[in-house]
Amino acid sequence: MAVQSESFDVAVVGGGPIGLACAWRAQERGARVVVLDAGEPGAWHVAAGMLAPVSEAEFGEGDLLQLGLESARRYPAFCAGLEDPGLRSVGTLVVARDSDEAAALDRLAEFRRGLDLPVSRLRPSQARRLEPALAPTVRLALEIESDHSIDPRKLVAALARVVDVRRARVTGLRVAGERVTGVLTADGVVAAEQVVVAAGVDVARLDLPESARVPVRPVKGQVLRLRDPRGPGLVERTIRGEQAYFVPRGDGRYVLGATMEERGWDRMPTAGGVYELLRDMSEVVPGVFELEIEELLAGLRPATPDNVPAIGPGALDGLVWATGHFRNGILLAPVTADLVASVLNDEALPDWAAPANPQRFAGVAA
Amino acid sequence: MAVQSESFDVAVVGGGPIGLACAWRAQERGARVVVLDAGEPGAWHVAAGMLAPVSEAEFGEGDLLQLGLESARRYPAFCAGLEDPGLRSVGTLVVARDSDEAAALDRLAEFRRGLDLPVSRLRPSQARRLEPALAPTVRLALEIESDHSIDPRKLVAALARVVDVRRARVTGLRVAGERVTGVLTADGVVAAEQVVVAAGVDVARLDLPESARVPVRPVKGQVLRLRDPRGPGLVERTIRGEQAYFVPRGDGRYVLGATMEERGWDRMPTAGGVYELLRDMSEVVPGVFELEIEELLAGLRPATPDNVPAIGPGALDGLVWATGHFRNGILLAPVTADLVASVLNDEALPDWAAPANPQRFAGVAA
Repeated sequence: MAVQSESFDVAVVGGGPIGLACAWRAQERGARVVVLDAGEPGAWHVAAGMLAPVSEAEFGEGDLLQLGLESARRYPAFCAGLEDPGLRSVGTLVVARDSDEAAALDRLAEFRRGLDLPVSRLRPSQARRLEPALAPTVRLALEIESDHSIDPRKLVAALARVVDVRRARVTGLRVAGERVTGVLTADGVVAAEQVVVAAGVDVARLDLPESARVPVRPVKGQVLRLRDPRGPGLVERTIRGEQAYFVPRGDGRYVLGATMEERGWDRMPTAGGVYELLRDMSEVVPGVFELEIEELLAGLRPATPDNVPAIGPGALDGLVWATGHFRNGILLAPVTADLVASVLNDEALPDWAAPANPQRFAGVAA
Repeated sequence: MAVQSESFDVAVVGGGPIGLACAWRAQERGARVVVLDAGEPGAWHVAAGMLAPVSEAEFGEGDLLQLGLESARRYPAFCAGLEDPGLRSVGTLVVARDSDEAAALDRLAEFRRGLDLPVSRLRPSQARRLEPALAPTVRLALEIESDHSIDPRKLVAALARVVDVRRARVTGLRVAGERVTGVLTADGVVAAEQVVVAAGVDVARLDLPESARVPVRPVKGQVLRLRDPRGPGLVERTIRGEQAYFVPRGDGRYVLGATMEERGWDRMPTAGGVYELLRDMSEVVPGVFELEIEELLAGLRPATPDNVPAIGPGALDGLVWATGHFRNGILLAPVTADLVASVLNDEALPDWAAPANPQRFAGVAA
């Protein structure tokens, strides 16, 4: 690795989209930044990459919604600065299979309209004109043209081209008194004025002083990565059902996800998880059965007790958190990076970022 | 490879269980034998390895049944000569989910009894005492204690330890007049007095004189290879349903198979294939949903027009066929090897082997 003899303004722990985006924004503001990553892809490698703040935030999660809306708004400009980040500006259909689900969709439509967000209510025949692969049994659909998607693997590759990423297994932080002075790795110390911890769920395994920790636990999500041997066109839009979503990449590839399972660090795909995803999506898009399975895999979402991430200064000087993004790591990358860059430059954060303050967890166990 | 300068009594094309077993038996009878294999695992790598001649042979396939019974009878002695061939002498339960399937089981039971093969008819409560993981909805079960299984990957590894296997991509046969004089490979010629072609479905891609071909086509079979993180014990016996089977390896691993699909050379697992296997077996053993998916894969069975393999002399002198084993390549390995060894030694074959005579296909296109 050979960074021990160097010294940085900022060391970022974790080379997923959050860490890379934070590094990029910090670097743009003049800092000398290094990203340290163990080379084992995190949740982003599994993620579908939906940019859908409203449908991802549950009712009652207003704080998270606010962060999501801020980040979605920033996404086009964020991507404009990157080469081939995999942004796909095609909308989403949320579909209902029965009257209960249709009632839930009507509540979602009303909620979006209350936020002045565009949404169209489509009868089944209208929905099937847009997406002929939808099952005839679909009862109702909402078209949300502004809910786009991005390919997280392309995003990470694009970000990794603009920042300095080095292979290192981070084991903890170097602390002097109440101040972080660098990062401990398997190969030695990397000195840095400030440290951004963006290691996703792996923050739970870092050796940190108890007072400086944030409580993050893994929530397993299984996905199938599918491919249509006939090429693209089965569906153009992201299709969301009650239990599963189906995100087209535009090249005949699709991500079908995702389970939500509290199973510790287990990352094995299971027969039951795969079965349920296929069953639920095939009721909405029967053509999924014709697709080839390219990959079965599971990722670990970093969940906090209140589902809101931890973004901001930690309990030690020089420590900045950017973790706990749960289901929203891809969506929240731009806003997280902007907030972290502000913290690194000693600027006050906007009020809407207060719910993400990591210090709300002081004394809370994971 | 460096075998071009050598010369052999027998060259065997294909290092799957059929080719290896043929080589082993030929070698035991004094021949100098080489097995040429491209190193890309064939159908055996996917196969579950059931040794179940009666339930595999459909009604009306009496010729195939006879071959299967002969081979099953030879299996214990065959395995006794090998180190760790993966034989598992635990029986099979064939289960019915409804009255139609129960009627079919009663016909199977009668058929087996007519062949003097042991079979026990079990009420649901009796079946569930033997295998508590069976669904309460099972209507009837047959216990077939003599239907065992073998791990084809262990079998191939065991056979490969006792014969001379060399890596070579065989492209065709060397023919002089009406006589085969060796094998053409990507790296040169391997001279041999006699050539056994045991290349599974790949025989369809060998460059052979039209008159000497046997018609073999690929029939795709998808399987899931599953693992119970809690260890062995979900089921002890092979469980066969109408559409799917579930074969325990005894170490917490299971093979769930298999689809039957006419899709040419396509070997990709599909969402529909995986879904149907999981649905069908979960109706019989609901606990499959708890298992981890270690591998999804598909193999290509080498099928002939009449489902009976091609075992015996070909249309050229020195050419011996051992292919077209369709669903039965593992079961039929011992009997195929014995028959091929007889042919190589100019012995007449028994009458019951006549249906497998490759020359029945003279003039038949694949």
